[in-house]
Amino acid sequence: MKVLIVYAHESPASFNAAAKDAAVAALTAQGCTVEVSDLYAMKFKAAATTEDITGGVKDAENFCYAKEIKLASEEGRLADDIKKEQEKLKEADLVIFQFPMYWSSVPAIMKGWMDRVLGFAYAQEKRYSEGIFKDKKAMLSFTTDCPESVYSDTGINGDINVTLWPLQNGILNYCGFQVFAPQIFWDPATDSPESRSSMLEGWRTRLQNLCGEAPVYFAPLDYFDKEKGFLLKPEVKEKFASKECGLTVGIHMGKPLPANSQTKAGV
Amino acid sequence: MKVLIVYAHESPASFNAAAKDAAVAALTAQGCTVEVSDLYAMKFKAAATTEDITGGVKDAENFCYAKEIKLASEEGRLADDIKKEQEKLKEADLVIFQFPMYWSSVPAIMKGWMDRVLGFAYAQEKRYSEGIFKDKKAMLSFTTDCPESVYSDTGINGDINVTLWPLQNGILNYCGFQVFAPQIFWDPATDSPESRSSMLEGWRTRLQNLCGEAPVYFAPLDYFDKEKGFLLKPEVKEKFASKECGLTVGIHMGKPLPANSQTKAGV
Repeated sequence: MKVLIVYAHESPASFNAAAKDAAVAALTAQGCTVEVSDLYAMKFKAAATTEDITGGVKDAENFCYAKEIKLASEEGRLADDIKKEQEKLKEADLVIFQFPMYWSSVPAIMKGWMDRVLGFAYAQEKRYSEGIFKDKKAMLSFTTDCPESVYSDTGINGDINVTLWPLQNGILNYCGFQVFAPQIFWDPATDSPESRSSMLEGWRTRLQNLCGEAPVYFAPLDYFDKEKGFLLKPEVKEKFASKECGLTVGIHMGKPLPANSQTKAGV
Repeated sequence: MKVLIVYAHESPASFNAAAKDAAVAALTAQGCTVEVSDLYAMKFKAAATTEDITGGVKDAENFCYAKEIKLASEEGRLADDIKKEQEKLKEADLVIFQFPMYWSSVPAIMKGWMDRVLGFAYAQEKRYSEGIFKDKKAMLSFTTDCPESVYSDTGINGDINVTLWPLQNGILNYCGFQVFAPQIFWDPATDSPESRSSMLEGWRTRLQNLCGEAPVYFAPLDYFDKEKGFLLKPEVKEKFASKECGLTVGIHMGKPLPANSQTKAGV
């Protein structure tokens, strides 16, 4: 198996670096080939701009990044740094995003990787369970600066499942990735060294059987009626009408959210 | 009133540019002072790095951006581009973020503005209704590339209220901003010129009374018990126990989400 780790922390002494190193070691020991894109070390360009397209954009006046990047990708006219990342991505069976959570999301440099490298995969005709990367797996692995309770459905930051939805559904699932449950390191910075070691040990153990895990559940593309605004088909709504909870966090049908559906496999 | 528009589109012919220009004109006509941070034109640095701190970081080995940026801010050791944006922010009564939605969020260059310029406002002791910017207003104004149905609670992209939660709660509300309902331009690119004009006209009309609008509802800080992991206080839980819906999108208490709570004022 080939693994790409997209990594965003500047300090080699950080917990994020340790989590990345633990993943490299554990996966290599299993016989995986592991590639790391160390975004800060690469000084990866974050802003999605016309410079990402070589040979000029097609419609400068009505510049639309999503359209231009897809066209440029088809015609081999992408900037070299995007091409290089796409080559790594093409090879990878699994992509792990390792980062400290910044403002309820990925750091800007990692959002830049997503905007620029995944841009060509933003395709309404090939998305979600029919998405371009449907044969690949992806997962988020990140640190927080607060304990788990704070991110619960009665905690001050609100349910972590809601916070993860735009990243896991709106980006990873949209591209077709099968999404493994996130690896969340709750507040390692204020924890004891023993507790940090034990978090890393748990991560190493998880990595040993990662590929045997079921992915997080998302609604398949054929649940939606493409002739009618991509809404749930009447027969699907009926099928789930008596269910106590919504289908997923975002497609909740006005019902309570399914508990832990973004943080646990196959819920 | 002083307004700061943080704007992220490269093309002066884009609908986003038109929406920004409409806001500048409408607000100026009302006597507001309007400042625009045109992030692409400024080539705004998106990545949050040690270079944002002048005179060296305090703890290079365990570099933590949030800690270092707060310290540097107190000691006047921030990079010039951050200082300039913070000056504009300090003056502003209202901040409008104008952008095309990229991957269910802001473009990386705008996330970079948030990571770097708002970084010092990330303070556990002063957050949410006690946040640093509690006397200011903020709002998101953005374009999508799909119709509204797609972002409903039975639509393929899921409820837009869920997608907006990390941005509006996790960033704007966290900093204390009173958040106006977002201005969402649904799929202007594939709409007719007449429809685009009418969207802009609606925006101009809204801007005339914007400051009379009630903000989006978020739970106040004193609902949470800081001695007990910032969970809802038992008396608050009891008060809302008989309510059919959760308090907010994220603090949903295992109940259905309050409808439109991130897209309509005071729901």
